[in-house]
Amino acid sequence: MDFSPSGRAAELTEAVRAFIADEIAPVERNLEERAAHARRTGASPGWQVPDVVRELRERARAQGLWNLFLPAGHEGPYAERYGTRGGAGLSNVDYAPIAEATGWSFLAPYVFNCNAPDTGNMEVLLRYGSAEQRERWLDPLLDGSIRSGFAMTEPGVASSDATNMQLTAVLDGDEVVLDGRKWWTTGVGHPDCRVLIVMGLTDPGAHRHARHSMVLVPIGTPGVKVERMLDTMGFLDEPFGHGEVSFTGVRVPAANVVAGPGRAFEIAQGRLGPGRVHHAMRMIGLAERALHLACERGLSRTAFGKPIMNLGGNRERVADARIAINSARLLILHAAWKLDTGGPMAALSEVSQIKILAPNVAQQVIDFAMQIHGGAGLSSDFPLAGAWTAARAVRIADGPDEVHRGLVARLELAAHGATR
Amino acid sequence: MDFSPSGRAAELTEAVRAFIADEIAPVERNLEERAAHARRTGASPGWQVPDVVRELRERARAQGLWNLFLPAGHEGPYAERYGTRGGAGLSNVDYAPIAEATGWSFLAPYVFNCNAPDTGNMEVLLRYGSAEQRERWLDPLLDGSIRSGFAMTEPGVASSDATNMQLTAVLDGDEVVLDGRKWWTTGVGHPDCRVLIVMGLTDPGAHRHARHSMVLVPIGTPGVKVERMLDTMGFLDEPFGHGEVSFTGVRVPAANVVAGPGRAFEIAQGRLGPGRVHHAMRMIGLAERALHLACERGLSRTAFGKPIMNLGGNRERVADARIAINSARLLILHAAWKLDTGGPMAALSEVSQIKILAPNVAQQVIDFAMQIHGGAGLSSDFPLAGAWTAARAVRIADGPDEVHRGLVARLELAAHGATR
Amino acid sequence: MDFSPSGRAAELTEAVRAFIADEIAPVERNLEERAAHARRTGASPGWQVPDVVRELRERARAQGLWNLFLPAGHEGPYAERYGTRGGAGLSNVDYAPIAEATGWSFLAPYVFNCNAPDTGNMEVLLRYGSAEQRERWLDPLLDGSIRSGFAMTEPGVASSDATNMQLTAVLDGDEVVLDGRKWWTTGVGHPDCRVLIVMGLTDPGAHRHARHSMVLVPIGTPGVKVERMLDTMGFLDEPFGHGEVSFTGVRVPAANVVAGPGRAFEIAQGRLGPGRVHHAMRMIGLAERALHLACERGLSRTAFGKPIMNLGGNRERVADARIAINSARLLILHAAWKLDTGGPMAALSEVSQIKILAPNVAQQVIDFAMQIHGGAGLSSDFPLAGAWTAARAVRIADGPDEVHRGLVARLELAAHGATR
Amino acid sequence: MDFSPSGRAAELTEAVRAFIADEIAPVERNLEERAAHARRTGASPGWQVPDVVRELRERARAQGLWNLFLPAGHEGPYAERYGTRGGAGLSNVDYAPIAEATGWSFLAPYVFNCNAPDTGNMEVLLRYGSAEQRERWLDPLLDGSIRSGFAMTEPGVASSDATNMQLTAVLDGDEVVLDGRKWWTTGVGHPDCRVLIVMGLTDPGAHRHARHSMVLVPIGTPGVKVERMLDTMGFLDEPFGHGEVSFTGVRVPAANVVAGPGRAFEIAQGRLGPGRVHHAMRMIGLAERALHLACERGLSRTAFGKPIMNLGGNRERVADARIAINSARLLILHAAWKLDTGGPMAALSEVSQIKILAPNVAQQVIDFAMQIHGGAGLSSDFPLAGAWTAARAVRIADGPDEVHRGLVARLELAAHGATR
Repeated sequence: MDFSPSGRAAELTEAVRAFIADEIAPVERNLEERAAHARRTGASPGWQVPDVVRELRERARAQGLWNLFLPAGHEGPYAERYGTRGGAGLSNVDYAPIAEATGWSFLAPYVFNCNAPDTGNMEVLLRYGSAEQRERWLDPLLDGSIRSGFAMTEPGVASSDATNMQLTAVLDGDEVVLDGRKWWTTGVGHPDCRVLIVMGLTDPGAHRHARHSMVLVPIGTPGVKVERMLDTMGFLDEPFGHGEVSFTGVRVPAANVVAGPGRAFEIAQGRLGPGRVHHAMRMIGLAERALHLACERGLSRTAFGKPIMNLGGNRERVADARIAINSARLLILHAAWKLDTGGPMAALSEVSQIKILAPNVAQQVIDFAMQIHGGAGLSSDFPLAGAWTAARAVRIADGPDEVHRGLVARLELAAHGATR
Repeated sequence: MDFSPSGRAAELTEAVRAFIADEIAPVERNLEERAAHARRTGASPGWQVPDVVRELRERARAQGLWNLFLPAGHEGPYAERYGTRGGAGLSNVDYAPIAEATGWSFLAPYVFNCNAPDTGNMEVLLRYGSAEQRERWLDPLLDGSIRSGFAMTEPGVASSDATNMQLTAVLDGDEVVLDGRKWWTTGVGHPDCRVLIVMGLTDPGAHRHARHSMVLVPIGTPGVKVERMLDTMGFLDEPFGHGEVSFTGVRVPAANVVAGPGRAFEIAQGRLGPGRVHHAMRMIGLAERALHLACERGLSRTAFGKPIMNLGGNRERVADARIAINSARLLILHAAWKLDTGGPMAALSEVSQIKILAPNVAQQVIDFAMQIHGGAGLSSDFPLAGAWTAARAVRIADGPDEVHRGLVARLELAAHGATR
Repeated sequence: MDFSPSGRAAELTEAVRAFIADEIAPVERNLEERAAHARRTGASPGWQVPDVVRELRERARAQGLWNLFLPAGHEGPYAERYGTRGGAGLSNVDYAPIAEATGWSFLAPYVFNCNAPDTGNMEVLLRYGSAEQRERWLDPLLDGSIRSGFAMTEPGVASSDATNMQLTAVLDGDEVVLDGRKWWTTGVGHPDCRVLIVMGLTDPGAHRHARHSMVLVPIGTPGVKVERMLDTMGFLDEPFGHGEVSFTGVRVPAANVVAGPGRAFEIAQGRLGPGRVHHAMRMIGLAERALHLACERGLSRTAFGKPIMNLGGNRERVADARIAINSARLLILHAAWKLDTGGPMAALSEVSQIKILAPNVAQQVIDFAMQIHGGAGLSSDFPLAGAWTAARAVRIADGPDEVHRGLVARLELAAHGATR
Repeated sequence: MDFSPSGRAAELTEAVRAFIADEIAPVERNLEERAAHARRTGASPGWQVPDVVRELRERARAQGLWNLFLPAGHEGPYAERYGTRGGAGLSNVDYAPIAEATGWSFLAPYVFNCNAPDTGNMEVLLRYGSAEQRERWLDPLLDGSIRSGFAMTEPGVASSDATNMQLTAVLDGDEVVLDGRKWWTTGVGHPDCRVLIVMGLTDPGAHRHARHSMVLVPIGTPGVKVERMLDTMGFLDEPFGHGEVSFTGVRVPAANVVAGPGRAFEIAQGRLGPGRVHHAMRMIGLAERALHLACERGLSRTAFGKPIMNLGGNRERVADARIAINSARLLILHAAWKLDTGGPMAALSEVSQIKILAPNVAQQVIDFAMQIHGGAGLSSDFPLAGAWTAARAVRIADGPDEVHRGLVARLELAAHGATR
């Protein structure tokens, strides 16, 4: 057993940390202030990508800190073509600390072209896309010239059971026709968003996990309408945003179906493992940042004659936060290693475990940090309110805690002979 | 021991409930939709009071559902003059269920002229104001023609220890001169806000609880500047809002000092008991509403072949919510009764206990309700995100949990001989 | 709403407290030391009632502190005959603080003839017993000359679902024949135990709540065998104890069936409400004692230069304990009041709520007190280990937490139209 | 990063598991039944080692499953002399899964000569003992022919602050004189116990961490008296037990001081790291066993028409248990790896983190398992009550949670510049 990171992982993580600290952090502080100011005056921070961010992306790319999420096995043509540092794909366990590092910053994942939902969409295209699909969408996504969205959740049904999905994606000759409504389609607000991966019901008579398809729908296709942008606890998450999108008689070529009709669940299964590791590690990064802020604030402000960190149970909460963060991080690294060594089916329970634990740990630590900051912790002067909202949302996005607990329990009990 | 409400409390609570259900709820739904729409498009719901709300206030007042918070002992002139139903002041324990009822609605407290911080400010003027102060500010506040703010928390120090306050309020002949900066001055955004009660340091050499004064500062006094409005986790809480306010060489007559210099802590002690009961009971109302929404949603949506309420531990969480709400409500009612029968000094521990328990219970129940709602629970389509933020803010406002835990412990240990 | 106890409740509670402090406590300390010594040397404290305890019972009875649990409505003949103070039955809400007072002492409930399971059995006989049954068993129980047991839980099935009970109680002419096995039959180890109330299956074809009967079985009836005494986490709870009892072809007259065949569930429903209030209030007394011990120890021992109470989060835990105890107590008092004013069916949810909350609060507070005591808290030198075990056992006895949560949720959801 | 165990660790863990399952488990079940029976009848299971256990020890030794805890670096003479399998010391991370395996059984650690406190004492002698001390005590300990105790905690002071220790160990010529009282001296009840390592105050004027010495005191030395054996929540933990031991004018040669006067804290620091890893991993084994029992029982018993595992939130609790166990295990393995690669001073925080987390996780999982078992979970029919008590005791033994939280916080805050 060896807990040291590989040399490559260590080198890249360090490079990413340095880039965030030196290049991204100052820009982010500035943008956050502008966004906070906009929010106060009732204006949106806007749905454009500021030039300064586009420049950061150029610089990151120039340093090869670009598409680092690109999984091992695809290091050949893509990594070289896009200048990914070291020219080679990383295992999940090697990429994990990089994901953690990017979690300290809201901006970083995008700067490094490693942000959701694009990473997941790129993985889908890498693993399941046809040559034509890859050329048309994967290349510009890796190049960073376009963005994409992922449309799965629906407003009319409990989407925690994905088989509930009602949007239809029916084959009609050499076309697929989509009708229905999605929401929480993340990324659809981005000015560069050009394509959505849409999950729809194709064959209601098939086995429950073979009824749905994933369809690539270009954003301007007639019948696709972004009805509104949703807010998450008051935050619109510009410029990506979460949209409610209606599909009315939308027609795309049958060739836009990924991997063939009825394979949406199979693809989702494979797509979600690495993405959940990324999400979970970013939550760890967020939690570390919150703990850092709590320590700084708690030591520098005094009340009742002491640093507030020394009042009541605050120091115990620091200890609890440290324990929670460290053990959650190790659980995630282990899940990543299981994905690497056994594949997604061997890591089903592990991936669900981290999907539950990571945002709950982050939420707990951020809550403590907010409490230490007093009123400041609630305001946009500190990143804590936004961080809390991000962690809270992850407890629902991509399957609520309860669904994942159900899965972990089912697999545990199966080992004791339970058939479901 | 008798847990039944008095006839008057029951009658007024019922009238308030009916008014909220019949009159306020439809308006509120409509305004929430407009506000959510505004937020999505990046606009503020605005800092004006919609006409429809002013009309609701007129109707509530016409029915005598006005100033019901007005404490017993002041039922004479004021209650009659302002048409308060039944013409008489209510005890804290009688007003408590009315406060709970208003907690179901964000709008209701204002409609009934029972909203913070105006209620607390009116209590200060009732109990400690001079005849002149009452005539100039209490009458129009009770009349509803003006609004007020309360300026205590400061950005530069840990305000959980109120003796940290640094804004100076120095006597200079027959004037008081204020210099310093406050934030989280709630209510200052309201278009009718005309006066602030400002706590400031008058005599640094006095006993630590006799150094500060409360000063009435009209909003247009030269040197008073609202620097910005703060958001609470993305919400501006229009049209009341929370302001950061600077005071630069602000001069007001010495007659504007409430009860005389150095008495701010004494006044605050008396002011806060009833207000904390109101806040806590509104938290109970909010929690009940969240539990109600959770039950409705959980029974009406299905996943994996069952109502989602029947999945996993959801029903247990309903039970836990019911137990938490019921026991918290009883703790608050008991604290109110202690305030009524023994006065604020006899209820110090009890009032701090409810200050801790109520928002934590509300937060827990709302969190569950959000989880049951999935993505919808995070959005502005449901009042849960706003409710959660309200409960979270109360854990910090008016003294964070930790400070109140410290007080409860100190009083408990004093009974075992501890001197602090 | 009025939270003050009635004059009678206050007077009796005070008398009980004084008797415990002055008479019982010194005896108990002495007995605990002997029991601890016996345990250390591998001997049982024994299955006899020490003379000193019998004398305490005599003195309590002489002062009328006897059978105070006797419910209102039965104050006539019984209370007079047995010299119950004031000659009259108490409401549940009036008896509750007395139950709390007795919770400070393991011995007190028995000294006052108010201990489980005898109180519940006496209530059954009072409410449902025939004249003959009352004369034969109720009178000596009230007199204190015999003790009784209650046999419901079975080792072979999940008894949390009482309809699982498999012991048969079949009518055969004018006799009932019992066959089966019970365990956790509390009280069967007592040297004065003379009768068991046994729940058995009489008519498997009836409605699921009309299948079972309660049968009075004298302890010496042929076929009744105490197979062994069970320990609860290492404690045998001498001299009452919990037995595993087999019934083999046990024959008793049909007249021993309480209220007639098939009525066991109906009786249990009525029996359990007050008993659960008693149990819950005793848990509050236990929790208060633990908090008292924690404060005393925490202030008198020092580590790292401070009283250990001032280290880490200890003071916060005192506050949390105070809040938890106070709110749980109020929930219980309210449930008692509901039982008094609306009867058992109106208080179903309330009674289950306190059944869940009270032992959990006690366990949490005792755990804290143990931690403050260090090694001493684990040993028999302090009553904490025994207290913890008592609280832990109550979370299972009489229906585990989970079953009661299910009931509370069912009643809550029924109000939203759920049919189960 | 590589989470797979080394080949040796895997081979030895498997051998240990098999030996426990095949050889120890049947014996243990039998002994537990006898102990439970003894307890019920008020007798102690006794202070002798049953022959059957001595035979198990012989067989374990014959298979080389003996002294496996022996740390790397000492594999030479000792491992060979005592037939330790593979002839070589294991790193902490390699030994950890073996410790987990032994945690499934109360008997196993002793059978493999890997039980506390002897392992810790052997480590002290290995690392700090003189040649003479090793020969006299280490050899027979490794040989298994004698046992030892560790005397640190004192009844009269808060021993969580070890500098509070008051027993004196004063040099007088070529002797050391010990006077004072210890309790929770684990192992002193064992019939083979021959020596105690006693911590005492030697030089009150020295730096607070240089005042105390560790002294080897043969058990029959005049003035050493075992006053009584203590019980832990009703359990005496025979035949090891925990004693209260008085030392009155006890004289031993100065050569019995380990490593020289004043070095007790330095030795303790080095001694405790590996021992805490062992303890923590045994807690994981215990938790796994409890979860295993919960799953088996929960699937095999039915209530309300379903396996009880499918009622309420039980399945969620299985998931939470799995997550808690897995993440705690990884935290421990990582701490072991840090000990191996950086030494005890580099792993201070990590070792305290696992000292807190492991028993709390075990306690939570065992509590759930008890609840699933109903009454059976409280009784001696299942190992759960004993397991719970073991976990509860570990939260206090060797430094209570609160002290370790304080240490973790101190190290965290030091990184932010806090000087304490």
